[in-house]
Amino acid sequence: MPLRKLLEKIRIVLIHTSHPGNIGAAARAMKTMGLSDLCLVNPKSFPDEQANVMASSAEDVLAHAQVVDTLEEAIADCHWVFGSSARHQRSLAWSLLEPRDCAQESIRIISQQGGQQGNLQGKVALVFGRESSGLTNEELALCNQLVHIPTNPDYSSLNIASAVQILAYECRLAARDWMALDKSVLEDSTSELVNAAELEAYLNHLEKAMVRSGFLDPEKPRHLMARLCRLYGRLGMTRSELKLLRGMLVAFEKC
Amino acid sequence: MPLRKLLEKIRIVLIHTSHPGNIGAAARAMKTMGLSDLCLVNPKSFPDEQANVMASSAEDVLAHAQVVDTLEEAIADCHWVFGSSARHQRSLAWSLLEPRDCAQESIRIISQQGGQQGNLQGKVALVFGRESSGLTNEELALCNQLVHIPTNPDYSSLNIASAVQILAYECRLAARDWMALDKSVLEDSTSELVNAAELEAYLNHLEKAMVRSGFLDPEKPRHLMARLCRLYGRLGMTRSELKLLRGMLVAFEKC
Repeated sequence: MPLRKLLEKIRIVLIHTSHPGNIGAAARAMKTMGLSDLCLVNPKSFPDEQANVMASSAEDVLAHAQVVDTLEEAIADCHWVFGSSARHQRSLAWSLLEPRDCAQESIRIISQQGGQQGNLQGKVALVFGRESSGLTNEELALCNQLVHIPTNPDYSSLNIASAVQILAYECRLAARDWMALDKSVLEDSTSELVNAAELEAYLNHLEKAMVRSGFLDPEKPRHLMARLCRLYGRLGMTRSELKLLRGMLVAFEKC
Repeated sequence: MPLRKLLEKIRIVLIHTSHPGNIGAAARAMKTMGLSDLCLVNPKSFPDEQANVMASSAEDVLAHAQVVDTLEEAIADCHWVFGSSARHQRSLAWSLLEPRDCAQESIRIISQQGGQQGNLQGKVALVFGRESSGLTNEELALCNQLVHIPTNPDYSSLNIASAVQILAYECRLAARDWMALDKSVLEDSTSELVNAAELEAYLNHLEKAMVRSGFLDPEKPRHLMARLCRLYGRLGMTRSELKLLRGMLVAFEKC
């Protein structure tokens, strides 16, 4: 699957943007990173010559941009909505993601929603508020999670196209890294966690190997098994990770 | 040490910028991430009202900007110089870093040059070429390493201020992580969690044992190390747990 397929499932939503130049600059930022789905909620002026100028050669993104009246319309077909938030909204009862985590989460959501292989159905929206005042409480309420770009606390005035640029950059990296993972790792993120019986079977196997190697003396067990049980127990291991550890153990035993 | 102390050792150098608005936007991008050292090599028009407009409230960065005639002057007191490069320069015999690695490397250089504690002497320059044509071969020859921002191969036309924004963002994250790492190492003696270096040493040991046992084929690594790194990385292992795992590995190797 080409990178593009993943990235085209990420929608950038700009709410009530005042300066059409910012819309153009955002379109350019998107296109440099391979994003193409732009939705404008009630922009002050669009289409606008200033937007075209700032878009440079990303006018196709502008040409395909949807223009809608409300955020509800913009996100209607999205499975997950991230709202971009300034620091002062930290006081709200929200968990704030960083761009990197937001991007990885987006790619995960998009790929998980793909029922059939190569047939991605998931869609994620990244929502950016007004240049001056960000997102309203009503708009925040429509978001599933907030993302905050770490900035200089003395001057956090990121231009909106710059904010889009950073998020789009992280999305590209996340999509690329996702594609670079091999299938078994891929299964990792989606496969089930091991249950207690599977974990115990592994620990029994490990115990036997330790006894055989002389590391564990059944006469003086030094609480080794209890400690390993606690260590692996808190890991939240997936099936494929357990398979890996078991394979490694078998290989060590054969030496 | 405040984050600012690290970030002020990173100089952004813009060479022969044509559009003064880009200089202002770059200054704004820098300030949002806590960078303050801007040097302009032979700008087409500076000072310029358009630069001030685009700088928004980052006019102090412009006010303190140095203006020089040559790249040599701009980097004279820098310990390391990164040149920002477009993809087509990949053909040159250069190792291209990504922004994340470049930022981490910058912070490492800056902090290593600090002879006395808290007295940072290291300085790093990130050099950006002309909007149209990038860096000349003569300018490239003055750089120690090149950094390339991954972009859409069909449209890699990053605005220069956007490129500055991404690099500055990565520098801020790298500086923050560096400071957090420092702290966790200090706190280590009380919490007894292993640090990154100790974990890496264990993973290296494990890797060798896996290769020896035939489980890991260096020709077909199957991302095994990446998966184990993630698995053990999220554990938050204590020193005594690591000691246990290491002892077990040594015992298995002796079999």
